[in-house]
Amino acid sequence: MSEYRHDLVTGQWVIVASNRGERPDEFVETVFERINQDCPFCSGREDDTPPEVARYQLRRTKGWQVRVVPNKYPAVTTSAPPPPPTLSLPAQSGFGVHEVVIESPEHVTSLTELSAEATTLVFRAYADRLAALRKRGDLAYGVVFKNVGASAGASLEHVHSQVLATALVPPPIEQRLARWQQEFQRTDSSVLLRFIQEELAQPQRVIQQTDNFAAVCPFASRVPYEMRIVPLAPRVYFEQSTAAELDELAKLVRDVLTRLEQITNRMAYNLIIHTAPFDSAPHDYYHWHIEILPRLTRAAGFEWGTGCFINPLTPENAAQRLRDA
Amino acid sequence: MSEYRHDLVTGQWVIVASNRGERPDEFVETVFERINQDCPFCSGREDDTPPEVARYQLRRTKGWQVRVVPNKYPAVTTSAPPPPPTLSLPAQSGFGVHEVVIESPEHVTSLTELSAEATTLVFRAYADRLAALRKRGDLAYGVVFKNVGASAGASLEHVHSQVLATALVPPPIEQRLARWQQEFQRTDSSVLLRFIQEELAQPQRVIQQTDNFAAVCPFASRVPYEMRIVPLAPRVYFEQSTAAELDELAKLVRDVLTRLEQITNRMAYNLIIHTAPFDSAPHDYYHWHIEILPRLTRAAGFEWGTGCFINPLTPENAAQRLRDA
Repeated sequence: MSEYRHDLVTGQWVIVASNRGERPDEFVETVFERINQDCPFCSGREDDTPPEVARYQLRRTKGWQVRVVPNKYPAVTTSAPPPPPTLSLPAQSGFGVHEVVIESPEHVTSLTELSAEATTLVFRAYADRLAALRKRGDLAYGVVFKNVGASAGASLEHVHSQVLATALVPPPIEQRLARWQQEFQRTDSSVLLRFIQEELAQPQRVIQQTDNFAAVCPFASRVPYEMRIVPLAPRVYFEQSTAAELDELAKLVRDVLTRLEQITNRMAYNLIIHTAPFDSAPHDYYHWHIEILPRLTRAAGFEWGTGCFINPLTPENAAQRLRDA
Repeated sequence: MSEYRHDLVTGQWVIVASNRGERPDEFVETVFERINQDCPFCSGREDDTPPEVARYQLRRTKGWQVRVVPNKYPAVTTSAPPPPPTLSLPAQSGFGVHEVVIESPEHVTSLTELSAEATTLVFRAYADRLAALRKRGDLAYGVVFKNVGASAGASLEHVHSQVLATALVPPPIEQRLARWQQEFQRTDSSVLLRFIQEELAQPQRVIQQTDNFAAVCPFASRVPYEMRIVPLAPRVYFEQSTAAELDELAKLVRDVLTRLEQITNRMAYNLIIHTAPFDSAPHDYYHWHIEILPRLTRAAGFEWGTGCFINPLTPENAAQRLRDA
């Protein structure tokens, strides 16, 4: 089976080629091999990170459960000159904030090892940081992402995420916003709402559903076991989620990650929280959503060359396996 | 240093953040670990591949030096129904041809281990296959790519490349063509010509130059040691290169890959040959070029989420190191 599929949400294309998964593979890869017992994110090592921006505690406990610190090796910094209001070709300084969310005082490597209460606290930290960075006034865009495993770009295994905010909306995100806005004007319905309605109408790709959220393998999944987590009633800003919503969402994310880990132990993945830009323009056509991209396959020459993905596992199959896990 | 840079050729954005390269790294990865001594690409195993499409011999030798065979696990096939003339949402069959170029009868893992004459033969095969696929009449687009090392998406280590041709131009390539055409109309000069002129005017990012070609680390390199190889006088179709040009080009590619291997032994990389689409429309604004993308870093949550790259090595530094290698 070989089929082109288009994703409404990302605008990207994929060739779903299910026979590719049968290829022989000569290579073995060690995804996790810890060489440094000396983890700067563990409790007792607080002085090894820059001073903390925020800390969270569990009820009835002493000591921190979640810490937010500036990234010691930032991709963007506030020491760069503030940029002009629009991006000018061909280059411009990278003004922004890059933080790390340390998600446990213990040396734990997966969100699934945290208690439900501790996981909720992590999502509380994400929402709070996005809200605080939005409030600064000198930043235009923020994203939360989690890299798990070396194949997913992580350099430390201690459970953590990153918050990155920039003074300019990244141009590919601008393009996505423009596309969502056009679709909104053309169809009188939001891209994310259409995505949810289409996936729920034929629930073969739905993994798990709660009162307010659904986790699905998108129709045009770019990689095996790609998952998208969406609120059933789309909202613009992730950081405006209520405490009850964050609690329900945290549990759902922990559940689907547990499913993923049951299929392949220690699978590397990226998790991304998309929310609307920080500027004051109305973003009623854009809605927050979460992407989870397992990194079992590698983008190769075809993907780099053409911008199209080749996915050797149909999302219908992936969702079935995740439901059964 | 943290700076946004835009690439004229790909249209992509990168944040060059040179301090990111100092991050500690807990993970060790085994890039090459051969577990299968049983290589289907070695001479004597010709029956393990589908019947060959083309074969090439060195002068004064018996036996093949380069073989082209259909990919046993194709991403696109001619058994899919032929597509309608335009891509329709949301899905469509993947009609196309997917071939493998086996680049040596011996179990060699790098192009740099081949003789100059044998390397030229490999480039001859690329050009011939693109010309043959163009001539079929039922395909719209073709690309040649080489995945070296597991991190670059290779499943076999025996030196080889792939040729993939589709009945539809991949939509991201259509977008690139439209951008190049707009730039051509706006500036009366081609994107690739402007790129070459700008890079040669300040040659700090030039690695090596020959009579007719230059190899540079592009201003907005997405990854450390990214290289672009371009003809000094841009041409539309790679496959119309003369024998003398293919010979000169093959030597230059072998030279720059040797430099790369001297910096990091067994570095994984992707090589991509871009040429104009197969349809009969005039593509005078588009020019062939070669991209080499070493895979030392991994696209992580930020890249997947925003479509922007973070590159921890400035291309100025990369070019210096490659020149010195």
